[in-house]
Amino acid sequence: MKIRYAALFSVAAACLTPALSAPALADTLVDNVQGTTMLENGKVGSFTGLWIDDDGTIKEVLKRGDRRPSGVDFLLDGKGQFVMPGIIDAHAHVMGIGFGALTLDLSQTGSLAEAQAAIAAYAAQNPNNRWIIGRGWNQEKWGLGRFPTAAELDAIVPDRPVWLERVDGHAGWANSAAMKLAGVNASSVSPAGGRIEKLANSKMPAGVFVDSAQSLIAAKLPAPRPEDRDLALQKAQEILLRSGITGVADMGTSIEDWQSYRRAGDGGWLNVRIMAYAGGVEAMELIGGPGPSPWLYQDRLRLNGVKLYLDGALGSRGAWLKEPYADDAGNRGLALTMPEKLRNLMSRAALDRFQIAVHAIGDGANSEVLSAIEELSGTYTGDRRWRIEHAQIVDPAELALFGKHGIIASMQPVHQTSDRTMAEARLGRGRLAGAYAWNSIARAGAPLAFGSDAPVESVDPFAGLAASFTRMDGAGQPFGGWQPQERVNREQALNAFTYGGAFAGFGEGRFGRLVKGERADFILVDRDFMMASPEAIRETKVLQTWVGGRRVYDRTTPETER
Amino acid sequence: MKIRYAALFSVAAACLTPALSAPALADTLVDNVQGTTMLENGKVGSFTGLWIDDDGTIKEVLKRGDRRPSGVDFLLDGKGQFVMPGIIDAHAHVMGIGFGALTLDLSQTGSLAEAQAAIAAYAAQNPNNRWIIGRGWNQEKWGLGRFPTAAELDAIVPDRPVWLERVDGHAGWANSAAMKLAGVNASSVSPAGGRIEKLANSKMPAGVFVDSAQSLIAAKLPAPRPEDRDLALQKAQEILLRSGITGVADMGTSIEDWQSYRRAGDGGWLNVRIMAYAGGVEAMELIGGPGPSPWLYQDRLRLNGVKLYLDGALGSRGAWLKEPYADDAGNRGLALTMPEKLRNLMSRAALDRFQIAVHAIGDGANSEVLSAIEELSGTYTGDRRWRIEHAQIVDPAELALFGKHGIIASMQPVHQTSDRTMAEARLGRGRLAGAYAWNSIARAGAPLAFGSDAPVESVDPFAGLAASFTRMDGAGQPFGGWQPQERVNREQALNAFTYGGAFAGFGEGRFGRLVKGERADFILVDRDFMMASPEAIRETKVLQTWVGGRRVYDRTTPETER
Repeated sequence: MKIRYAALFSVAAACLTPALSAPALADTLVDNVQGTTMLENGKVGSFTGLWIDDDGTIKEVLKRGDRRPSGVDFLLDGKGQFVMPGIIDAHAHVMGIGFGALTLDLSQTGSLAEAQAAIAAYAAQNPNNRWIIGRGWNQEKWGLGRFPTAAELDAIVPDRPVWLERVDGHAGWANSAAMKLAGVNASSVSPAGGRIEKLANSKMPAGVFVDSAQSLIAAKLPAPRPEDRDLALQKAQEILLRSGITGVADMGTSIEDWQSYRRAGDGGWLNVRIMAYAGGVEAMELIGGPGPSPWLYQDRLRLNGVKLYLDGALGSRGAWLKEPYADDAGNRGLALTMPEKLRNLMSRAALDRFQIAVHAIGDGANSEVLSAIEELSGTYTGDRRWRIEHAQIVDPAELALFGKHGIIASMQPVHQTSDRTMAEARLGRGRLAGAYAWNSIARAGAPLAFGSDAPVESVDPFAGLAASFTRMDGAGQPFGGWQPQERVNREQALNAFTYGGAFAGFGEGRFGRLVKGERADFILVDRDFMMASPEAIRETKVLQTWVGGRRVYDRTTPETER
Repeated sequence: MKIRYAALFSVAAACLTPALSAPALADTLVDNVQGTTMLENGKVGSFTGLWIDDDGTIKEVLKRGDRRPSGVDFLLDGKGQFVMPGIIDAHAHVMGIGFGALTLDLSQTGSLAEAQAAIAAYAAQNPNNRWIIGRGWNQEKWGLGRFPTAAELDAIVPDRPVWLERVDGHAGWANSAAMKLAGVNASSVSPAGGRIEKLANSKMPAGVFVDSAQSLIAAKLPAPRPEDRDLALQKAQEILLRSGITGVADMGTSIEDWQSYRRAGDGGWLNVRIMAYAGGVEAMELIGGPGPSPWLYQDRLRLNGVKLYLDGALGSRGAWLKEPYADDAGNRGLALTMPEKLRNLMSRAALDRFQIAVHAIGDGANSEVLSAIEELSGTYTGDRRWRIEHAQIVDPAELALFGKHGIIASMQPVHQTSDRTMAEARLGRGRLAGAYAWNSIARAGAPLAFGSDAPVESVDPFAGLAASFTRMDGAGQPFGGWQPQERVNREQALNAFTYGGAFAGFGEGRFGRLVKGERADFILVDRDFMMASPEAIRETKVLQTWVGGRRVYDRTTPETER
C-alpha cells in the first residue's frame, strides 16, 4: 500500500504557499483495525475503520458491516492491528524533551560512579562544547544518601564548566569551573526561594544548587541559538510521535519556544499539537497579547494561558507542606510565589481570559491555590478550566474543592510509581491519604488530565497508562498497588490520557477522540490497551502515528529515511 | 454593484478555520478603468480591466477589445476612473503611524486657549486613558512669548498625568499630576544635556522639560498594552490604505510589533503588506530565528532583515558629516554605531542571510556604510540587496558604489522638499552636489525605493510622487525645482513607489506591478498620475484601495460602516 505523502503534506502547505490554489485533496480509509476510543458519552467505543476527509478530519467511523466508501484515494490496511486515539500528554516540556535528547542524559545511571563514567565519555565525545550540559541524575536512585559534590565532577571534567540538572529540575549540580565562572564562592548567600548546598562545616558551596539558587549558575549557560531550538523541537516531535503522543500541553513556554513553534507551523513541520502555557505573565502577554491565541495551523498550536509556580518538588523538599517534612523537622518547604502575588498574577491572567495552570505539589501549595481559585471564581466566572499541575499531596478535607470549581487535576501517574518511597519518607505513613489521589479527585467530580512531566519522567504514555489502574511500577511493585484505593479504571485512564488532555486545553471536539468531525489523530499499536495485562501494556509497540489524517511516524521506516 | 465581502474575506479565513474546507471562491472583474502600471520591461503599461483569480492574484490584464470573461462572480465597473498599482512605501514606521494617530495632535492650535480647549475635549473623549499624551504644540506659533506651565494644564486636567511633546520633540509639557508621579519637585536638578524650566523666582518646576530633561517624565509613561498595540496597528492600516498604500517596509520592528502583525495575520485583519526590518540584531534573531521568515498570510508579512542606525538627523546636527557643519564649526555630527561594531552587526545578520538596511544620512555615515558593504560583499555573496536608508548626503565621488554593489537607495522625496533650506544652512551651498541625489544614484545603476518615513513626514505618497519629478514643494517652491538635475522622471517616480519598493523587500513578482500572476493590489484614483500637473497630483483622491483582490478601503463608505 502506498500513501501519497506529498499530496497529504499540502494540507498544511496550502496556507504557506498561497499563490497556489489548494489542490483537491483526497480521502483516506484506514480499515481492518480493532479500534478503541472514548466516546462523547464517556463510554468506550469500538470500530473497525476510519474514513478520513481530505482535510484530515474523520468523516465516518466505521463498524464491521458498515459500507466502505468506494474510490478513496489512500487505503491503509491495518491487518487486524489495534488503533487508539493519539495520546494527549497534559503536562510536558516540549523544548526540554528536545534539548534533553540533545544533551547528556543521566537518568539511566544507577550510581555516582556510573554517572561519572557517562559524563567523562560525553565530555570526550564533545570536545567543542564550551559547557557540558546534562540532566536526569538522582542521588536517591544512586543510593548515595547525600547530594553529589563539585569535587566529584572536577575529578572528571576539570577544564570546562559542567551543569547537570537533577531529574526533577529542582536542583542542579555544578563543577568548580562553572561556579568560578558564575562568581559563586564562600561568600555567596542563598537567594530567596533557593539554597546553595554548603560543604559540611564550611561556607564553601558544595556544588548543588536547589530551586531558585540554580539560576546562579544556569544564568551563565550560553543561550541556545534559534537553529539549536529548531533542532530541539524537531527532536522532541520525533520522540513524542514515536511514543504515540500526538498532542501535548507545553508547560512554561517562552517567547523563544513559541517562535520555534511558529517557525514549525509556518514551515509545515509542526506535527505534534501543542497547547502552550506561557512561563509567567510577561511571556503570556508577549506571546498571546490581549488574550489566548486562536488555534493555529489547523489546531496544531494555541497559546492557552499561563503556567505559574507555587512551590518546588517533594524530592528536594521544596514542596510546600502544611506540616513539616517527616524527614526534616522544622522544614515545610518553600512558597516560590507569595500568596498575594499569586492572586495578582492569576487576576491579571484571568482578566484577559487566559487559562491558568498552577504548579502545586505539597498540601500547603494545593491549599493555597484552591483558596485562590475559590476567591477568584466569584469575579472570573464562566468556563475558566482552572488547572492545578501535579496536585500531588492534597489535604483530604480539600479534595471536594476540585469538584466544586471544576478544577482540572493535571497529574502524572508515573510520578506516583517513581516517588512512592520518597513520598513515604517525606510525609510519613500517616499523611498519605491525599497523595496522588487520582480516584478521590475524580470522585470529587474533577476532570483528570494525565501526562508525563517529560523530560522529568520518560514520555512513554504506556507506563503511565499501566500505572493508572494498578498503582504498580514496571517491576510490579508494590504487589497489589500503592494506596490502591486511588487507582482509576482502564476507561478513566484512557480518557485522562486522550479526551482529558484535550479538554484540559480547550481542545475537545477538535482532537482526542476518534469520532466524526474530530481530527484523525490516532496510533496503530500491537496490542489492545483494554485487554492486555499491565505488564504487556508497558511493552506496547507504537507501529504508526497519524496526525490530522497524515502518517507522521512509521516504525517500519528506518530512522534515516524519515 | 454589490461586492460580496464575506466570501472574499474567507480567502484569509480558510487558513485560520482549517476545520472547514476552503470554499470555492470566485473570480472578480475590475473593468472600464484607465489603468497604468510599470511592466516587467521597466516601461509603463496601460490596461482597461483586471481579471482577478479566486485567490486574489491577477489572472489576466485586459486591454480595450480583449474578450471579457463571462460569468465572473464579482464585477466592479470603474466608470472610467484611473487605476494604478497600490503604493509601496519603502520606509515607514507602521506602529509609529498608528500610535501617532491615537494621541492628541496640537499642531493645528493657534493659541494657548485653543490648545487648552483641545486638551480638555480629548480628555473628555478618552475617560479611560490613564495618561493624556500628545504632541505638536508651539508657543511661538501661539504668540505666547514664554513656555506654557503646569498650572495651565492643571486647570484643564487636574486628575490624570498629562505629557505633551513640543512640535520639534525637543521639549515636553507636563501637568502637576505627571510631575508628582515622576517624583519631580523643587529639589530636582536638571540632568546633563537638559533643563527643567523653573517658575520665576522659585525652585519649583514650571512644567516644561527641555531636551534630555524630558526623560524625567517620559520614562514614566505606561508601556502600551497589547490591545493598545493592536488598536494602533488597525489605525495605521486605515491611514495607509486610505492614502493608497498597500505595502510598506517597517523600519525597526520590535518583537511586540511583530506579535501584533501576527495577531492581525492570524485574525484575518492584516490588510497592508508589511516587509519588516527588525530594530537591531537581537530583535532580528528573536523574530526571525535562523533566518528571514517565510512570506506569511498570502504575502502579507515577512521578516526580511534588520535595520541598523549609523547616524542621526541633519536637523539636530546628528548626521555624521565628512566636514564640519557649515552652521556649527567643529561639529561633524555623531556615529551612533562605531565602525567595527557596524561591521560586526552586519556580519552577524548577513551570515544568516538576513537583509541589512542601514540608516545613513550624512556623507560620513554613507561613506562608512558603503565601505562596509564593499568589504562584506566579498564574503557575503549572492543577492543581498544591501539597503541604505535615507542616503541623504553622499560624497559625489562615492555615488558609483551604489551601482557597483546594487545597493538599494531607500529615499524619501518629501524629506528633500521639507529639508532644503535647513540642508543649505547645515552644509552650505558648495556641498550640495550629492544631496538627495536621486537621479545621480539612479544613473549610477542603483535601484531606487521611495517612501515617506511616516510618521516623521505625512504618509501621503502623492506629495512624494509630485516632489520626485519636480523637486518643488506643495507651494511650488522653489520654482523650477531645488537642484533640479536630481529630479527623476514620472516613470522612475512611479517605479520607485511601486515596483522599487517591492524589489527592495524581495517582494517583486508577488506584488508591486499589475501584471499576470501578481497579487491584485491596486488603487482607484480620480486622476491620471502620468498626465496630471504636479499640483493636481498632490490633490489626488484615493477612491478605493484593493489588496489581494479584496476591497479594503472605499472612500464612499462612511468611516462608521467600515
